Amino acid sequence: MLTRMGKPFRIALAGLGNVGGGVAQILLTRGAELAQRAGRPLELASVCARDRNKPRRADVSHIPWIGDPLALARSKADVVVEVIGGEGEPALSLIETALAAGKPVVTANKALLAAHGARLAATAEEQGVALRFEAAAAGGIPIVKGLRESLIAYGIDAIHGILNGTCNYILTQMEKTGRAFAEVLSDAQARGYAEVDPSLDVGGGDTAHKLAILSALAFGVPPDVGRMRVQGIAHITPADIHFAREFGCRIKLLGIARRTAQGLDQRVQPAMVKLGTPLADVDTVFNAVVAHAGEAGPFTFEGRGAGEEPTTSAVIADLVDVARGANGPVFGRPAKNLRLLPAAPPEAHVCPFYLRFDVRDLPGVLAEIAGHLAESEVSIESMIQRGRSPGEPVAIVMVTHECAETSVAHALRAIATSDKVLGPPCMIPIEAG
Amino acid sequence: MLTRMGKPFRIALAGLGNVGGGVAQILLTRGAELAQRAGRPLELASVCARDRNKPRRADVSHIPWIGDPLALARSKADVVVEVIGGEGEPALSLIETALAAGKPVVTANKALLAAHGARLAATAEEQGVALRFEAAAAGGIPIVKGLRESLIAYGIDAIHGILNGTCNYILTQMEKTGRAFAEVLSDAQARGYAEVDPSLDVGGGDTAHKLAILSALAFGVPPDVGRMRVQGIAHITPADIHFAREFGCRIKLLGIARRTAQGLDQRVQPAMVKLGTPLADVDTVFNAVVAHAGEAGPFTFEGRGAGEEPTTSAVIADLVDVARGANGPVFGRPAKNLRLLPAAPPEAHVCPFYLRFDVRDLPGVLAEIAGHLAESEVSIESMIQRGRSPGEPVAIVMVTHECAETSVAHALRAIATSDKVLGPPCMIPIEAG
Repeated sequence: MLTRMGKPFRIALAGLGNVGGGVAQILLTRGAELAQRAGRPLELASVCARDRNKPRRADVSHIPWIGDPLALARSKADVVVEVIGGEGEPALSLIETALAAGKPVVTANKALLAAHGARLAATAEEQGVALRFEAAAAGGIPIVKGLRESLIAYGIDAIHGILNGTCNYILTQMEKTGRAFAEVLSDAQARGYAEVDPSLDVGGGDTAHKLAILSALAFGVPPDVGRMRVQGIAHITPADIHFAREFGCRIKLLGIARRTAQGLDQRVQPAMVKLGTPLADVDTVFNAVVAHAGEAGPFTFEGRGAGEEPTTSAVIADLVDVARGANGPVFGRPAKNLRLLPAAPPEAHVCPFYLRFDVRDLPGVLAEIAGHLAESEVSIESMIQRGRSPGEPVAIVMVTHECAETSVAHALRAIATSDKVLGPPCMIPIEAG
Repeated sequence: MLTRMGKPFRIALAGLGNVGGGVAQILLTRGAELAQRAGRPLELASVCARDRNKPRRADVSHIPWIGDPLALARSKADVVVEVIGGEGEPALSLIETALAAGKPVVTANKALLAAHGARLAATAEEQGVALRFEAAAAGGIPIVKGLRESLIAYGIDAIHGILNGTCNYILTQMEKTGRAFAEVLSDAQARGYAEVDPSLDVGGGDTAHKLAILSALAFGVPPDVGRMRVQGIAHITPADIHFAREFGCRIKLLGIARRTAQGLDQRVQPAMVKLGTPLADVDTVFNAVVAHAGEAGPFTFEGRGAGEEPTTSAVIADLVDVARGANGPVFGRPAKNLRLLPAAPPEAHVCPFYLRFDVRDLPGVLAEIAGHLAESEVSIESMIQRGRSPGEPVAIVMVTHECAETSVAHALRAIATSDKVLGPPCMIPIEAG
């Protein structure tokens, strides 16, 4: 009978920052509830962090402390939780040691999985133990489980995700206040919504890590950020955000992975999404993923993508699964069957594009731009040019008909050489969502 | 090693309608992919349906046919799939027989689970076998798994769902065309989006079935539609839909279950949701559920809620889970621990309300209505009255400040007795989403 309590499931927890502290707190305060679900008590058996004496919200003073992460990985435990973070040491060796010792691992470490996921999955599967990472992509949103276990009957054609709360917060604030990127970023840093070094977030790298993980689950490829084109949001101006609205769109930093006839298209880039589509109203620190599941249609998952509680929620879900004996291929399919797919060439990316040119308001400038676009067979669907005093810098913005990214890029290279055009033109795809 | 293929997982399939046919087709065409995920081949071992000779999309002529559903439940199989439908026979006996024989069951049957879910869960758990039903609530959306396995760390405060595609299609079409409920319903019937007898859908009963299942998962109560207030959409007029838009809202049929200080509030009723909130843009046959997961925040799941492919997708996900050995409490917590919670009294339902009064445009009518509202301590936030010729019927619509449903209902009873008021007043809560 299932409802008889099994023996305690001993958890070794490495990392006591926000997430580790949250996990400890839930284990210590919601034990009875979780035991009902797992069929056995979840016991916090040992903890490990850099600084033993740091004040913490969860009181772990009575939990055995193991100073060395590798000793923790080898300790008497039924699972090792890695919430230290970082692509390298000590997280990597901790996970490798635990798996080699035949222990399941639960981790929230996107950077590490994006770099070493395929190899670690192979190790876990050889050892016959689980490697779980719901918290590593889109925080509390159960998209890892959704792709691994739920949306499997018809395969996945495409995933489109808002995967970085910092960028989404900045873009939302830019829209709300009309202020420039740099100003909003400083403000976000002051409020703790952006890191002191924000480059991993605003440069798109963090989104790329998460997209690599989701791509592996969706398409059976090894996680590989090296095969993605990655662009951040630093070049987005308040003008772009304003004009997006005029064209019935909003700007979001998207991670996109989709099958095309020419290969797998994997990109991180700011994109416009139409109002009324599921990603358009995802604001502030929320994340969302749209998974196009073949004939079953699109499914959207939205929720908090970072922070103590959402991340803790994902780690706890993994722990209860593993405590109940859940196992199976780490990325849905056996790691030995993960296969690189050819990368789709940029010409496989066909959609309407938003273009902004900062120009001197001189006679002939529009003719010159339009000429170059026509030469590259890019046709214009609509255009906005607001007058200023003649000779002053002014923005010309337009939306093209559907065309290949390569055609637009070709035209922009020619246009950028004009002395009437100030600075590099801005190109933002308008994605279907 | 996990990636070694296990022995075939033999599936007995009862029901070969749209969903059964879809399940058969996926098993027959995507076997290799599913075997990778399950670690063993999924084998369609036997089928059963009312009419053996009906033409079907999936060719099952080579699959052993078992005429009697109960014989199928007792046949040599590792799992029984019930996609016959209907609260009663033969589905009920089929499931009972399979569970009693120690066989896991996968079902898409919401009516049956809403009526017998707690008892069947207890049987399954006593037998130590899985009873899975992802397809029984919100079709392809993995909300059953989400509530059962993912959003567990902080508990659930509330769930708000658009759970019936027929109603959502009708409301969307009423908004798009300005036509009345009855007309749009006939059209939906002609297109196959509504049943010949539409009462279970448009009366709210189907939403109640699904809400009962989600409530059990979210709050650990036995599924029980008897403890819900259930209202359909037949009284919604094009005027209400039009005015909703003027108040920045849209009308959706919601299933709501939420913890209050006075008990569990479970309702099915048309509600207004504010534009920009996750449920407002869920259109046509799509379903969506917002789960408020304590400190982890709200999570939204959206996708197709009915139809062959979404439902098949959910059944296949359950099958692969069971093939991999997944088991555990049917509703997340052991069935013997499911407990009724006191029902929240109507006065626990506090929100702004939209009110519509069809009145004779006579002097004093507004004063009379306003007087009754004031007596019940309902204060008005905004009001719209569009002039017609004096004496002709006209709609007065208003939005109240936050107040208890009971106060509004009290005022409406008094107002309905006025000879200046034509027909029963319409009251629609404006829910936070």
